[in-house]
Amino acid sequence: MTVYRERMNAPKPIEFWFDFSSPYAYIANEWIDALAARHGRTVQRHAVLLGAIFPQADLKPLVSYPIKGEYARRDILRSARFERVPFTFPEAFPLPTQNAARVFWWLDADQGQTRAAQWARTAMRAYFTRGENLKDAGVLRALVVEAGLDADAAEAAWNEPRWKDRLRQANDDAVKCGVFGAPYFIIDGEPFWGNDRKAQMERWLTEGPF
Amino acid sequence: MTVYRERMNAPKPIEFWFDFSSPYAYIANEWIDALAARHGRTVQRHAVLLGAIFPQADLKPLVSYPIKGEYARRDILRSARFERVPFTFPEAFPLPTQNAARVFWWLDADQGQTRAAQWARTAMRAYFTRGENLKDAGVLRALVVEAGLDADAAEAAWNEPRWKDRLRQANDDAVKCGVFGAPYFIIDGEPFWGNDRKAQMERWLTEGPF
Repeated sequence: MTVYRERMNAPKPIEFWFDFSSPYAYIANEWIDALAARHGRTVQRHAVLLGAIFPQADLKPLVSYPIKGEYARRDILRSARFERVPFTFPEAFPLPTQNAARVFWWLDADQGQTRAAQWARTAMRAYFTRGENLKDAGVLRALVVEAGLDADAAEAAWNEPRWKDRLRQANDDAVKCGVFGAPYFIIDGEPFWGNDRKAQMERWLTEGPF
Repeated sequence: MTVYRERMNAPKPIEFWFDFSSPYAYIANEWIDALAARHGRTVQRHAVLLGAIFPQADLKPLVSYPIKGEYARRDILRSARFERVPFTFPEAFPLPTQNAARVFWWLDADQGQTRAAQWARTAMRAYFTRGENLKDAGVLRALVVEAGLDADAAEAAWNEPRWKDRLRQANDDAVKCGVFGAPYFIIDGEPFWGNDRKAQMERWLTEGPF
């Protein structure tokens, strides 16, 4: 009964949408767990494909815009340094990352959020610090092993219709939650878009709605 | 000789591009002078028309994007509260603000940056706290008087080809400086886009390039 009441009163997790190929989402992925922990929260991650979401929001990849795209490359590097997160721009960028995302959803269903989050960290760090190409099956298999998982099971998962469908579902659900870019967060119903909303999220969690 | 040397060594002003109709630029307009003063800097403002700049960057007004536009309305209000800047969403938004911008450039040339900056503050506060329509000639004249200026001279200025050309020149120069949105800042050659880059600008001014 006490346990039940505690669960009812437990603060909701911070929801966090990301694409494995989003630099700003990678930076946020490096600070979100510590921020959540400071406020007694957990993080619920959602892997999505911005390539499936952008057209619905009349948007395209940031770096493909003239003028703004050039600025973005500079701002991404500076924003990583600002958060003291190691970052090297990958040569292959942006990438289609559906296989990495399917592995995420397979792990989420099969082994839980903690293992799925560990996979997200391993894969994004490999891409954004060592430039490892997440589109390449061999690279993905090696990273799966690095994350302490089974490479054959992971490859089977990314080829399985079930996890393809799960990712499609995640993209659709994301748009319903107002997601149009990454990182995107929801804290107790309040949406925050961007690595640069960290300070607002911190105040929201500290003081409540402002 | 000493005066000359001091001038040579004086830190460069923070350059600040804004559109009278940009909510995020209005919020930044409320903190930029204090930030500059904390670091012994001045602010050099540039009034531009985003309507003239967006097409060159393959962009359009933020609130006209599906999904992202809805988020933006919420984020603008929250960002104003975060910076403790009074803000009420104007009913008429966005507005074409060429007349306000021409008055700015006339003042800049005729009476100097300080008066031009005072005009920017007066007009943007009227628009973003009281919803006063900056497109309306009568409203503009009344605001010019509120700013301690001559209404007839201001109206003559916004109709004069010289100040129309000056604004066009400002838009062209802005694009050459990489401007694709507002607020946009340059500090010692480093570009910062967005009200949300305040913390990065503060660190840049405190510690130097990072």
